[in-house]
Amino acid sequence: MFSCKMAPSSLASRFRQSVTPTALRSYAAEFISTFFYVFSVVGSSMASQKMMSGAVRTDSSNLLVAAVVNVFALASAVYIAANISGGHVNPAVTFGMAVGGHVSIPTALFYWFAQMLASVMACIVLRVTILGQHVQSYAIAEEMTGFGASVVEGILTFALVYTVFAVGDPKRDPCNAIGAVMVGLMAGANVLAAGPFSGGSVNPACAFGSAIVAGSFKNQAVYWVGPLIGAALAGIVHDNVVFPAENADSFRGVSEAVGV
Amino acid sequence: MFSCKMAPSSLASRFRQSVTPTALRSYAAEFISTFFYVFSVVGSSMASQKMMSGAVRTDSSNLLVAAVVNVFALASAVYIAANISGGHVNPAVTFGMAVGGHVSIPTALFYWFAQMLASVMACIVLRVTILGQHVQSYAIAEEMTGFGASVVEGILTFALVYTVFAVGDPKRDPCNAIGAVMVGLMAGANVLAAGPFSGGSVNPACAFGSAIVAGSFKNQAVYWVGPLIGAALAGIVHDNVVFPAENADSFRGVSEAVGV
Amino acid sequence: MFSCKMAPSSLASRFRQSVTPTALRSYAAEFISTFFYVFSVVGSSMASQKMMSGAVRTDSSNLLVAAVVNVFALASAVYIAANISGGHVNPAVTFGMAVGGHVSIPTALFYWFAQMLASVMACIVLRVTILGQHVQSYAIAEEMTGFGASVVEGILTFALVYTVFAVGDPKRDPCNAIGAVMVGLMAGANVLAAGPFSGGSVNPACAFGSAIVAGSFKNQAVYWVGPLIGAALAGIVHDNVVFPAENADSFRGVSEAVGV
Amino acid sequence: MFSCKMAPSSLASRFRQSVTPTALRSYAAEFISTFFYVFSVVGSSMASQKMMSGAVRTDSSNLLVAAVVNVFALASAVYIAANISGGHVNPAVTFGMAVGGHVSIPTALFYWFAQMLASVMACIVLRVTILGQHVQSYAIAEEMTGFGASVVEGILTFALVYTVFAVGDPKRDPCNAIGAVMVGLMAGANVLAAGPFSGGSVNPACAFGSAIVAGSFKNQAVYWVGPLIGAALAGIVHDNVVFPAENADSFRGVSEAVGV
Repeated sequence: MFSCKMAPSSLASRFRQSVTPTALRSYAAEFISTFFYVFSVVGSSMASQKMMSGAVRTDSSNLLVAAVVNVFALASAVYIAANISGGHVNPAVTFGMAVGGHVSIPTALFYWFAQMLASVMACIVLRVTILGQHVQSYAIAEEMTGFGASVVEGILTFALVYTVFAVGDPKRDPCNAIGAVMVGLMAGANVLAAGPFSGGSVNPACAFGSAIVAGSFKNQAVYWVGPLIGAALAGIVHDNVVFPAENADSFRGVSEAVGV
Repeated sequence: MFSCKMAPSSLASRFRQSVTPTALRSYAAEFISTFFYVFSVVGSSMASQKMMSGAVRTDSSNLLVAAVVNVFALASAVYIAANISGGHVNPAVTFGMAVGGHVSIPTALFYWFAQMLASVMACIVLRVTILGQHVQSYAIAEEMTGFGASVVEGILTFALVYTVFAVGDPKRDPCNAIGAVMVGLMAGANVLAAGPFSGGSVNPACAFGSAIVAGSFKNQAVYWVGPLIGAALAGIVHDNVVFPAENADSFRGVSEAVGV
Repeated sequence: MFSCKMAPSSLASRFRQSVTPTALRSYAAEFISTFFYVFSVVGSSMASQKMMSGAVRTDSSNLLVAAVVNVFALASAVYIAANISGGHVNPAVTFGMAVGGHVSIPTALFYWFAQMLASVMACIVLRVTILGQHVQSYAIAEEMTGFGASVVEGILTFALVYTVFAVGDPKRDPCNAIGAVMVGLMAGANVLAAGPFSGGSVNPACAFGSAIVAGSFKNQAVYWVGPLIGAALAGIVHDNVVFPAENADSFRGVSEAVGV
Repeated sequence: MFSCKMAPSSLASRFRQSVTPTALRSYAAEFISTFFYVFSVVGSSMASQKMMSGAVRTDSSNLLVAAVVNVFALASAVYIAANISGGHVNPAVTFGMAVGGHVSIPTALFYWFAQMLASVMACIVLRVTILGQHVQSYAIAEEMTGFGASVVEGILTFALVYTVFAVGDPKRDPCNAIGAVMVGLMAGANVLAAGPFSGGSVNPACAFGSAIVAGSFKNQAVYWVGPLIGAALAGIVHDNVVFPAENADSFRGVSEAVGV
């Protein structure tokens, strides 16, 4: 109801605000949403492979699966967590929010922990239940250098985080529920463009979880460096250039939701 | 308008509340929505097979059909029944609602009966009108054990029922109409992940109807045990962990709609 | 603002109400929406064929195109006409509305004329601009009898018209804009199920326009008899069984919009 | 908050209104949205090609990619700019708005510059990061003459701009957020119909940017003449025929947003 952004708060008090029951529920919501997002994205990649088994060809329908699962899973995962945790479902989004001051550092770290744990657990469930197929980590196509892939992943993450900022926090305005759909659509559009080239992760947690379970950390840096820089830039551009301070009241940060 | 959850009510009075005209309209709404959901899902699987006829290959576009029909059919089926019956369209959702106390046991049984009858009738119509093709029951891929498939179906159903709970009852808040879309998107995301492995039913009524008409009950237990456990857990986790009691007023149960 | 449903009105006065400027704008809105709907649906079928040229195979991605174009084109076509004409875009919907008394007979006839004219003109534009490919009329697969196809088309149209009735008229409740999406989703789900069997027209105007330009009226009756019966039943079931009279105020008919 | 449409304003004062901080933010929003739209659309065409590499066939799934990316990218790009610039993301939309008097000429020229610059930069990024694949400009199929393609692109743009006008400016009515989805759906439906024939650009900026980077301006006129005529006609028909003056208050132009 009232914002406490202006109140002076030491790191210790900020930490205490990060372990209140309300804050703990936020972490649970992030865990649940990220678990289902990663389960769907990584699982659909395995399902897509199975459908093509016995064929050496690839097909645009594989690309569609990768894009469509991002729209379906991200929109619904963001929505179900939106009024609890803000619906980040992505360490890069949390990072952009922290850089913009909408989430405190301790809270952001708890968010990250919940997101990474959820991603690893989703990949473990897929590995254990689906026999004879391996979880695959994201890979860069031969058309791209590592640096180029990092740039592209950074651009994709800029688009995603900028959209999250533009949507604002849907928890106060029920009509803004469409915002969760928009976040999903933007992610899907980006995967259609870059999926076969840079991998189209856009979500460091997803890249981390699949890499852990696949046992391959090749190019893992690509899925962290680019996205985190892109996320930070998106938050800065949004808050300072397109929606500057005098419009700040039209943005409703996630900070109040978790007691920061 | 007012909730009668707190009122002491014997089983007999609860049963009487389950056969009022308002309640009967709920069952009709469940029947209509479930009929069209099952008609679309089972029919699309037959249509998809026909498009591939003369080929030994499968294709990711089959996977897309299975996922997309869940989004299209479930979102619209939930929406058209939402302000009458709550839009369950799925015995697992009704079970989760009953476990959470949002629907009485007699009402839940009537819901189940309407859903099962609708599913069987939809499959009969498909079988009678489409000659030379058989209705197929859900099957488990060789990559999965029966237990693994049951776990996966349980996880999928947890995701679906948790989303239904997070959406709450859209009947009071017209802007929450987007919730029906979210339920569909979550189901579609899950089918993309698990469809080719565990079957991706997520709906015991759908599995039951197609099994009746196909005459094969192999692995039928998989599509009941996992989903019902997952649905119950989803309701419990939602109501007690993420949206606990003090937030209870933000959840609007379906119970009032059917006079329970 | 005020409903004149109760006012006694002779056929002559009803006709006069059908040619007011407001009514004429409704016909223009129906023409524009139906033109773009038919242009997209029939055009996408030709585009889909072109993509497969040089191959004897069909593919589930053709089925996806047919379903997805119904969602995209119908949702947007209904939406842009919704607050002018009610967004019927389909003679079967207009028929169901007329049977239910939500639209007068003269108005319904003008709607039909606008819809049919739009469909024929859209097909003519496609035929004239795309050389070397023919507009194709809807066809019934060998798996189906004419009677079976008519039954299936009737069921599909029941689903569509019932959804239109459940959505009500979106012109007064801006949040109900999601209703146009639901109408599109239901149509798309149905085409996924029945497209390769009965043709999946669900829209007599679309079937009529493509038949005129293709010069083949074979099985045309299938796309009229089933849908009109299905539409009438949907309106009757909705208004009398699921949303009976005492709930009538929750349905906002299209009649006020066109001065009937 | 208040409209200054009625105020007499010379060209000079109009120009001054086009370089206020609020107006500059509009151009930044148009730049960002158009950049991501073009990045996704042109990138997805390259991704689609890569998925099909090693095969001489095309497939309806390529068509789906082209249509779906328009829905995903246009809906989200329009949405994130809607309450800043009106969310044109397309020189044809800006042209239609200028013809209808909803945007001043100087503002429209700045919008065009931002859109063209964004498109060229998006194509340059794709060219630089993706090695061994070329950005491709839009092309007309052999089934079409240049004139026919121009007519079809004009019809598609009429549909798109008419939808944008029907949606109105979503900045005042938060529930109208669904409008951005409708604009995307209409574009996607059109691409499904005409993509393989006329190219399905519907966006002169997109055609211009890809032509600059591909170094081929063959048929470029097709993607400008038809769309601009179609856009102007759409605005005129909407404002004068279907939504005439007495309904004008139901349309909320973009002009206030940029201080015109």
